[in-house]
Amino acid sequence: MASKENEIIRRYFNKESDRDDVLIGVGDDAATVRLPSGMELVSAIDTIVEGVHFPAHFDPGDIGYRALAVNLSDFAAMGAEPAWALLSLSLPAADESWLGSFSDGFFGLAGRYNVALIGGDLIRGPMTATVTVLGHVPAGMAITRAGAQAGDLVYVTGSPGAAALGLAKLTNPNAQDSGLEQFFRRPQPRVQQGIALRGIATAMIDISDGLLTDAGHIAMASGVRINFDYDALMKISRGELTAAFCGGDDYEILFTVPEKKLDALNAATAGWTCGPGCIGKIEPGQGLIMPGHDLAAYSGYDHFA
Amino acid sequence: MASKENEIIRRYFNKESDRDDVLIGVGDDAATVRLPSGMELVSAIDTIVEGVHFPAHFDPGDIGYRALAVNLSDFAAMGAEPAWALLSLSLPAADESWLGSFSDGFFGLAGRYNVALIGGDLIRGPMTATVTVLGHVPAGMAITRAGAQAGDLVYVTGSPGAAALGLAKLTNPNAQDSGLEQFFRRPQPRVQQGIALRGIATAMIDISDGLLTDAGHIAMASGVRINFDYDALMKISRGELTAAFCGGDDYEILFTVPEKKLDALNAATAGWTCGPGCIGKIEPGQGLIMPGHDLAAYSGYDHFA
Repeated sequence: MASKENEIIRRYFNKESDRDDVLIGVGDDAATVRLPSGMELVSAIDTIVEGVHFPAHFDPGDIGYRALAVNLSDFAAMGAEPAWALLSLSLPAADESWLGSFSDGFFGLAGRYNVALIGGDLIRGPMTATVTVLGHVPAGMAITRAGAQAGDLVYVTGSPGAAALGLAKLTNPNAQDSGLEQFFRRPQPRVQQGIALRGIATAMIDISDGLLTDAGHIAMASGVRINFDYDALMKISRGELTAAFCGGDDYEILFTVPEKKLDALNAATAGWTCGPGCIGKIEPGQGLIMPGHDLAAYSGYDHFA
Repeated sequence: MASKENEIIRRYFNKESDRDDVLIGVGDDAATVRLPSGMELVSAIDTIVEGVHFPAHFDPGDIGYRALAVNLSDFAAMGAEPAWALLSLSLPAADESWLGSFSDGFFGLAGRYNVALIGGDLIRGPMTATVTVLGHVPAGMAITRAGAQAGDLVYVTGSPGAAALGLAKLTNPNAQDSGLEQFFRRPQPRVQQGIALRGIATAMIDISDGLLTDAGHIAMASGVRINFDYDALMKISRGELTAAFCGGDDYEILFTVPEKKLDALNAATAGWTCGPGCIGKIEPGQGLIMPGHDLAAYSGYDHFA
């Protein structure tokens, strides 16, 4: 009764991991794992679709990497630790070389964060990959979008807009060689940074939908206004403010910190190579402003706009 | 910063549930829930694709129902209790009427099993729906495919093949009116039955890939041979043995029980309206046999055969 489907799963997706908390992994109807005591269960799901989230004929290793990275970035944004993943992969055909590269990209990133693939689904269909990541956070320590308060400072890691500029280069051979392709191909989810911000950040989000859209989510969820600092934004985005505000696909984290926690922030971020940069402050009110500039000129990506 | 995507999520997918173990639900980067103590975390993921798992223009309420049901059936097969779900929905366009029906189908079934939708993803793309269900099972009580032993009896719930016959009717208006469409449109996952079999069944699987394929999975995982009873199979399948063996899409459960547990089985199944029927026994050896019949004449569905 062995089938091609099972053979593919066995060969490319049933990999040993170092985790001893996986009780039943790939190969049964469902997986079981042991959650450490005192922890809340954290979960996130994301689908990436060829032609929507990455160009057709994108490197399959990069697809495998991104399918997991987008979820790890969600974990980063909660201050949560990823542990296990489920993968549902839909493919028009079973190309062994493609599957090998995809698997390498996926497990290369999974290994770096000690994430075990514990289950999945493989079907024939349009090229899409959906990953659910499961993990944990100490009870009550998850960092939501809703905790920002007037007086907090607003920080972002890395260089927002880099992924969008990298994608432009990937899809247009005549685009200026920006050296930024890797920010789209292999973005670094800020998992360790998110964990280090527990007890320091009052609100946090990743900016995968674009800095402006995601900052708007914090403003709305927290019931506050964000006042952006134009000079600081120009500096961290190397002058590419439209890409920074609207680009999307950056797996950087945007977070807010009260003044009284600035010493703790400095201590926590001392060894970081990805900033963070202070790009504004939280005020009473709602929405987003940048004095002297009209933010309506910018807009984020909306799948159904 | 409100977007169409967020508006759709708010309107159709952000529903209150009665569960007080959901700490952070729909609307943040990830969800957090509280797992009861003494429980292992159980997870399953499945994708359904238009034209592969259901016909084009299938009723959207049925799609929403099936997207969740296929995972609940995986939980049934482990003897696990579902609690939370994540939904990733890819759609070519945002049709409000379609979304309303899909949502009704999904939440109608979710409510029946007290499953809370805690997160998701909504993207523009080909029509596919991926659901991850999370839940729990008391430590050490999950029922895998690997525990069948020589001497065990083999049982199945319901009437295998009913879904395939129902699908044939749905896709061919000239097919005999079998009254079986609902077995494809709204299959009943056997969640309560699976839970009732904890401590009784030695191995269990759902037969969504077809009875023969899934029985083969138990035989291989357990290192045993399954000897089918032709007369018993003919009886529970109303003579439609090819549909029963190869049909797929049945959300019935196949399980094995040692003779010494038959009293417990009878007590546990006394109120069931879905059998179970005894269709064979476990023997030393490997593979599947049915005395007097060549099983090679039958084969299950393989996505990449």
